Amino acid sequence: MALKNRKSCMLFTEPPQQIIVAAHAVLARDSVNSEARLVSSLLSQRRLPLEPWTDQEIKSFLLNISSWDTNNFRGNIGVGEREGRYASNLVYERNFGLMHGIGRSGDIAAVQPKAAGSSLILRLTRYLVADAIRLAGIPSLVNDVPKGSPCLLPVATGMAITLVLLAVMKRQRAAHPNVKYVVWSRIDQKSCLKAMQLAGLEVVSVDQKQSDSPAEQGLVTDVEAIREKIRSLGGAESVVAIVGTTSTFAPRSPDDIPALGRIAKEFDIPLVVNNAYGLQCTKCCSLIEETSRASDARVDAVVQSTDKNFLVPIGGSIVIGRSDLVSAVGAGYPGRASMSPILDLFITLLSLGKSGWMAMLKKRRDMFKSFKTKLQQWTAQRGLRVLEVPWNRISLAIDLSSLNLDSGTAATEIGSALFTRRVSGPRVVLCENGPSKNIGSMVFSNYGSHSEDYSAAKSYMTCACAIGCEQQELDEFLVRFDHVLRDLRKKEKSISREQA
Amino acid sequence: MALKNRKSCMLFTEPPQQIIVAAHAVLARDSVNSEARLVSSLLSQRRLPLEPWTDQEIKSFLLNISSWDTNNFRGNIGVGEREGRYASNLVYERNFGLMHGIGRSGDIAAVQPKAAGSSLILRLTRYLVADAIRLAGIPSLVNDVPKGSPCLLPVATGMAITLVLLAVMKRQRAAHPNVKYVVWSRIDQKSCLKAMQLAGLEVVSVDQKQSDSPAEQGLVTDVEAIREKIRSLGGAESVVAIVGTTSTFAPRSPDDIPALGRIAKEFDIPLVVNNAYGLQCTKCCSLIEETSRASDARVDAVVQSTDKNFLVPIGGSIVIGRSDLVSAVGAGYPGRASMSPILDLFITLLSLGKSGWMAMLKKRRDMFKSFKTKLQQWTAQRGLRVLEVPWNRISLAIDLSSLNLDSGTAATEIGSALFTRRVSGPRVVLCENGPSKNIGSMVFSNYGSHSEDYSAAKSYMTCACAIGCEQQELDEFLVRFDHVLRDLRKKEKSISREQA
Amino acid sequence: MALKNRKSCMLFTEPPQQIIVAAHAVLARDSVNSEARLVSSLLSQRRLPLEPWTDQEIKSFLLNISSWDTNNFRGNIGVGEREGRYASNLVYERNFGLMHGIGRSGDIAAVQPKAAGSSLILRLTRYLVADAIRLAGIPSLVNDVPKGSPCLLPVATGMAITLVLLAVMKRQRAAHPNVKYVVWSRIDQKSCLKAMQLAGLEVVSVDQKQSDSPAEQGLVTDVEAIREKIRSLGGAESVVAIVGTTSTFAPRSPDDIPALGRIAKEFDIPLVVNNAYGLQCTKCCSLIEETSRASDARVDAVVQSTDKNFLVPIGGSIVIGRSDLVSAVGAGYPGRASMSPILDLFITLLSLGKSGWMAMLKKRRDMFKSFKTKLQQWTAQRGLRVLEVPWNRISLAIDLSSLNLDSGTAATEIGSALFTRRVSGPRVVLCENGPSKNIGSMVFSNYGSHSEDYSAAKSYMTCACAIGCEQQELDEFLVRFDHVLRDLRKKEKSISREQA
Amino acid sequence: MALKNRKSCMLFTEPPQQIIVAAHAVLARDSVNSEARLVSSLLSQRRLPLEPWTDQEIKSFLLNISSWDTNNFRGNIGVGEREGRYASNLVYERNFGLMHGIGRSGDIAAVQPKAAGSSLILRLTRYLVADAIRLAGIPSLVNDVPKGSPCLLPVATGMAITLVLLAVMKRQRAAHPNVKYVVWSRIDQKSCLKAMQLAGLEVVSVDQKQSDSPAEQGLVTDVEAIREKIRSLGGAESVVAIVGTTSTFAPRSPDDIPALGRIAKEFDIPLVVNNAYGLQCTKCCSLIEETSRASDARVDAVVQSTDKNFLVPIGGSIVIGRSDLVSAVGAGYPGRASMSPILDLFITLLSLGKSGWMAMLKKRRDMFKSFKTKLQQWTAQRGLRVLEVPWNRISLAIDLSSLNLDSGTAATEIGSALFTRRVSGPRVVLCENGPSKNIGSMVFSNYGSHSEDYSAAKSYMTCACAIGCEQQELDEFLVRFDHVLRDLRKKEKSISREQA
Repeated sequence: MALKNRKSCMLFTEPPQQIIVAAHAVLARDSVNSEARLVSSLLSQRRLPLEPWTDQEIKSFLLNISSWDTNNFRGNIGVGEREGRYASNLVYERNFGLMHGIGRSGDIAAVQPKAAGSSLILRLTRYLVADAIRLAGIPSLVNDVPKGSPCLLPVATGMAITLVLLAVMKRQRAAHPNVKYVVWSRIDQKSCLKAMQLAGLEVVSVDQKQSDSPAEQGLVTDVEAIREKIRSLGGAESVVAIVGTTSTFAPRSPDDIPALGRIAKEFDIPLVVNNAYGLQCTKCCSLIEETSRASDARVDAVVQSTDKNFLVPIGGSIVIGRSDLVSAVGAGYPGRASMSPILDLFITLLSLGKSGWMAMLKKRRDMFKSFKTKLQQWTAQRGLRVLEVPWNRISLAIDLSSLNLDSGTAATEIGSALFTRRVSGPRVVLCENGPSKNIGSMVFSNYGSHSEDYSAAKSYMTCACAIGCEQQELDEFLVRFDHVLRDLRKKEKSISREQA
Repeated sequence: MALKNRKSCMLFTEPPQQIIVAAHAVLARDSVNSEARLVSSLLSQRRLPLEPWTDQEIKSFLLNISSWDTNNFRGNIGVGEREGRYASNLVYERNFGLMHGIGRSGDIAAVQPKAAGSSLILRLTRYLVADAIRLAGIPSLVNDVPKGSPCLLPVATGMAITLVLLAVMKRQRAAHPNVKYVVWSRIDQKSCLKAMQLAGLEVVSVDQKQSDSPAEQGLVTDVEAIREKIRSLGGAESVVAIVGTTSTFAPRSPDDIPALGRIAKEFDIPLVVNNAYGLQCTKCCSLIEETSRASDARVDAVVQSTDKNFLVPIGGSIVIGRSDLVSAVGAGYPGRASMSPILDLFITLLSLGKSGWMAMLKKRRDMFKSFKTKLQQWTAQRGLRVLEVPWNRISLAIDLSSLNLDSGTAATEIGSALFTRRVSGPRVVLCENGPSKNIGSMVFSNYGSHSEDYSAAKSYMTCACAIGCEQQELDEFLVRFDHVLRDLRKKEKSISREQA
Repeated sequence: MALKNRKSCMLFTEPPQQIIVAAHAVLARDSVNSEARLVSSLLSQRRLPLEPWTDQEIKSFLLNISSWDTNNFRGNIGVGEREGRYASNLVYERNFGLMHGIGRSGDIAAVQPKAAGSSLILRLTRYLVADAIRLAGIPSLVNDVPKGSPCLLPVATGMAITLVLLAVMKRQRAAHPNVKYVVWSRIDQKSCLKAMQLAGLEVVSVDQKQSDSPAEQGLVTDVEAIREKIRSLGGAESVVAIVGTTSTFAPRSPDDIPALGRIAKEFDIPLVVNNAYGLQCTKCCSLIEETSRASDARVDAVVQSTDKNFLVPIGGSIVIGRSDLVSAVGAGYPGRASMSPILDLFITLLSLGKSGWMAMLKKRRDMFKSFKTKLQQWTAQRGLRVLEVPWNRISLAIDLSSLNLDSGTAATEIGSALFTRRVSGPRVVLCENGPSKNIGSMVFSNYGSHSEDYSAAKSYMTCACAIGCEQQELDEFLVRFDHVLRDLRKKEKSISREQA
Repeated sequence: MALKNRKSCMLFTEPPQQIIVAAHAVLARDSVNSEARLVSSLLSQRRLPLEPWTDQEIKSFLLNISSWDTNNFRGNIGVGEREGRYASNLVYERNFGLMHGIGRSGDIAAVQPKAAGSSLILRLTRYLVADAIRLAGIPSLVNDVPKGSPCLLPVATGMAITLVLLAVMKRQRAAHPNVKYVVWSRIDQKSCLKAMQLAGLEVVSVDQKQSDSPAEQGLVTDVEAIREKIRSLGGAESVVAIVGTTSTFAPRSPDDIPALGRIAKEFDIPLVVNNAYGLQCTKCCSLIEETSRASDARVDAVVQSTDKNFLVPIGGSIVIGRSDLVSAVGAGYPGRASMSPILDLFITLLSLGKSGWMAMLKKRRDMFKSFKTKLQQWTAQRGLRVLEVPWNRISLAIDLSSLNLDSGTAATEIGSALFTRRVSGPRVVLCENGPSKNIGSMVFSNYGSHSEDYSAAKSYMTCACAIGCEQQELDEFLVRFDHVLRDLRKKEKSISREQA
């Protein structure tokens, strides 16, 4: 597009010498050019900026782009039923005037004619996310913007898994009209199970098994049981997908994705991975990358949360994987969708930049290592122990068995005592006489422990060193946990005294 | 005024007399009390405030509520993997610190322990929406907050229809394991069709038929064809749902929902209504309300858009209907979801108040009537006509047949010429030799005209007088449309001269 | 300045075709160009934009300009003691990053090398204000940006008058070393008097006199007394300036500026006019313009408030007048000053545009006329009257004499009763046995009535129809005033009954 | 918890149990109470909060207080000419609805009846500033809120000095009608001089003298010359005030305030101290505090900048000192004034808290020490030196004499070369053949060097380690300075080669 007469934008980029002193204007122009270079570089490189953008720079850019949507055109008039109108200034402002959402009826990743600006932001965000995932360790699955992977969905992980499975199901049914099972390496996290059930599939759950190594207390994928289950169900004729999970509460380990990938290849069944908060963890990422690169394995789709990896409000997810499948997920989405989760992600990625993202990843890794070591000493001093789960590098489980708490209530009291002390996040799990739970038509014993009969501990408490966590939070956690333990002991003493 | 034992809140609500002059403080206290009364009244009445809240009042309230979420607690520490952290101030600010989204793994309408504030906003928004829908004309279907209807979903209309159908399907399959068809009164709007296909259902489309009345050119529901189709498919044994649409482009009329409701009752098949932007229209609402109240009819779920009715950014929808079904839709949602569309709606409803909402509804109704009359005169003066569709009171179709445009291209040129002149919204539709379209496995001729053989016009252009539209937009539309028509005639003349 | 390689800014102004569809990008580009044209036109025309800018457009422009200040340069480092640093994000944001204030040590209107952006905003605001004043009716005194008039001061009217008088004094003392008096047409408004006293001058007050016309009750300038006073003081040898006031509470009239201007010319003494909120009033403006254009008169400086004329927060003023004097006011200002009042004014003027400014002026004029008529009828019905003051077209005085209130307290009770009913603005003034007041070394009787012996009323209440006032405020004022009057009568009755 | 009779505020401070689950509400209530405690503690303690407030907490508080001003009352109507109206949402928002400014016509520190909220903020800010100054090291002069010291002025340092001198002059003239001189320990900073001239005073400048110590190169107060000058002028009969300066560019030292204080006491002449950015420096503060506490000395008023000490935008200052004088400064101010500089300061102090303020002070002190040491080594390595000025602990002067730059131009080139490299702040000063400058009627040689004949260096460059400066700025400064020096040497070589 040839633009001969460019006067119109000139004064935007050059300080007006007639109004202020020319000499002063020179440095100002350089500054404006710096900003223009930021934008230019973003649009041409389509990678995370090396250094963070400031909030002012981000806002300036958003206001610029926002003016590309028809509803923000000077003199635009709307005589349709969906014209990006607004009734509240506050709403308009907090959305930077981006009212048209993303997607078209045909495809959630498609460009909207009425909303060139919003569409550009979606595209750019996909590029930036691709770069962030590349840096996190899964370069092989994010090479197909604008067509395929990664795809951004303004729904959280659970709903994204449903959408992926609906797309998988549609394809598999074309070849195998009777498929209906999902074979699933059990994880006691309700959303994932409901996601599969919502897709109308029958879930076949395979328990985790305890690690063979005596020095470890982790639960690991029961690969053989899964293979056997698939075989007995009839393979690809009846099994629509295998679902594994990487990021998970200890003592569950990330699933052995490479092994699941080999089974998937062997039986010609798609493998879907729930990598909800796994982008922050090198281990989780490398399991996926390894599988993706292996010639004897396959991984079809991997779903991750935007909020848990990139610290935005809940409500977005990223699907990566085989590009034809990922693009089918986007193309199957009926109609437009909220821009908000994408906008939050876009802003966050610009405000982190490559340096910020790398620093956050490194900080978490380092902090996890040192906290695990510290927690091992700390628990040892108190007659407790940390369950050893070498592959799980986000979550830690503290064995509470030695407290000899007589009932489930007593153990779970620890959780609520911590919550009252403004510690959020820890979960107490009972592995003996724990709760049983119906979800859909399925029943689970000792729900929460990922297994019907985990024997390494009677009860334990998990805590995590997740991305965005601060060292002082971990330090203070131990202080408050100590208070809770002391209170517990006092209470027990007074009870036993009374009983005596 | 005796104020004992109010230490915690006292200084917040009463100006401190020690610091400023007591006399001045009295009026200030009254003002603070006015605001407290606003909040108190909102929480106790749970209805739209009679008068609009100001942006300052809304922000103040949101900041207050936001402090109820754990991530905003003073001194809170997080040791979980999802703690409402943020990396960008800009993101935190634009979301008022509400980072935890809505819903729990169990239910999208459930209260989150970590996010009492966000949960409260969701609840309140459901109450306010219920009130707004009551005022719009469907009081009988919105009486079950907190348990059931209305349910708010942070997904747009299409995806909401999918979720409703998945919930319907689950229930119907329990009784009729082989259901698989949706009988659908055709509307040429892609999202709706894709929504049904995404749910994995087979769509049976029944064309609209032309109105029997010679003075009308509207398309209306072919009630008998639908009954016959259901019968031939095997009724409730194979048909999972009937889907009808109210808000629609002219010359299509709103579906005859009462008649569909009677068929639904007769065959014991759920009726789902796509009322996307129908809340703004008394006709659309009364069709639904009438059906809901009729003893010989049923309506199970009605889906409407938040953006098209309440002028918020795209991305939310409201499901109303039978409370057990509506609550099942919420309970089936896997995991948490974005707060943003709910927040935008909450802010908008407070900033409108009852008076604002009623005024917007009335303004649109009045403007539609006067615009239709004006357009009839305007077109008559130019040898065109407005297709007469008495039930459609949002959209108008201008018959372009008399222009004798020789090809589809020429007709659609009008649309792009208008777009270039910054008129967004009009659609040109060809009813003869129009485009044929494959969507999923289905093929449609003359796509866009809701019928294989609409004969009242060769081509027409639609425009709408939708909520939020301004009179000056309608006036200016005619000015620009006139320009386009003149350009068209000039071009034709010069072509015919050249040919001569 | 030749800028050959302009690639860097290109992508800012053109949507990137590689990322989104080229066809969609064309309209977006047009939109961006519209915005660029706004800016370009602002910088080249330096007049109020014809139509309002939107808040998004204003913010976008401010963020752009803000990046011209060194503190916002990418990579800037500061090793001075004043580097535009900030400790609070909130402060930075609300000031759009404009931290350097305005002015240099040499001149408040000078360009700061470190702050080209802030300096540009100041310059532009002066141009826009010049245009607004031109439109308001004083074109002859605002033609010297960037050198002289108008000058913007980030101090309110009172302090601005002090600064003007200090500059006047400095000049007059060069020729007349013993000048020390200001001759002042009395107005009972404390700030103005204190402004003269702060400048170290001795104020000689000349009372207003009652209008000669029997049909009028206004107070008018006692021109002859002023001339006589100046003569008796020794003329230019001892009188440093004459100070008159245009905008004022009824029944005081605007001073007869042309007559004062003639005296000023005659005696060769500068005339300073307090036109605090007079820009909104054609009468006030024309008095000044007429004087400025008259060959036998002079007007040296005119001071107006930004808040009272342009509805911004209190804290800014505009000095217009003889360009050499006005520029001396700016050049005498010691050091830098707050940007905030200028920024508020700049934003407001852009958001009004010419059309908004003209509409506001017209609305007020029309509203004043109809309100005066209505109030005359309304008071007549209640046995009260509006004091007739034909030249005062902002403020109205309601004669309360007929209420036969026995004491000052009773009359002033009306004011506080209205305040309690949330009516702000009315002032009750006692003209008999009113309060006497010491200000500095001066003593005034019946303070508030601008005269020692105003006899047309025993007490009156003023109210104003000022710019920004809404019709419904005026209507509601009468409703609440009526309540107050009724309460008063009830109270009086009950007292007289008790006494009986 | 028994909560009787708390209807008005109850729902504001307690989550509504009827709407969300009671158990979740308990923690939320605790959180709300935490915030209420923050406010309660602020209002009762009137000290800096121990820990920073978050931006959300600050905004929430401001929106609350803002509702105490009449213009934000629900249902308020205004019929005055100054009603806090606004024309731009953007302006209203960025000012949190605080439109009424501060002060009354009677006193800038007085409470406005129409603006209880704004008045409260002003009062609180004065308390917080008092606390901050106490912590900085001048506790003896800030003990009289609400009546006297500290006083906040929404004008920058220069103008504040003018206002102080006008107040001083008024008082001194009562006793000594012929006072007209200010005796001033010279500092080559234009605003201060202009401030004295604006007040209409005749400035008598006394040069700094070089330190007697051979190991030092600092300029120090010529105490004897000042005493002699005062004596020769006639003492209190003709000298209105002595003005000294603490914070200053090296090699000038802070003035010997205790010595000046003793002279002031001896002659019974007020001492005014320009402590513009001295709050950040223990030395500057202790000089003032020592003088204030000494029985044989006096210090009447001390003026400091808000921006240079507290990192807010330019435009505010703090006057402390004898409470009667300080309150006279406030009471002399004619009319209302801008709220903005106070608001910025209030927000900043809350967002710093005591811990933040103390940390900033300490960081600067530590950084200055280490930077001075580093700079001494760095310059030594390059054949330069740092001028030794032991009392100046903010600014450092690098002697450029050894560069043998032949002309002033060459030396000042260093400054502009640094500015081009985005280093702002350094000043190059010529002590031989430097510029001479007329300010008002005064002429100074070698302007910038605070002395007619500073002989320790031919030219030098100053840089500062001021509050808010970051370590990386200082490090990067040396890198860029090095580049500039190398460029300079290259250029010189090429010139000498050409000449050869």
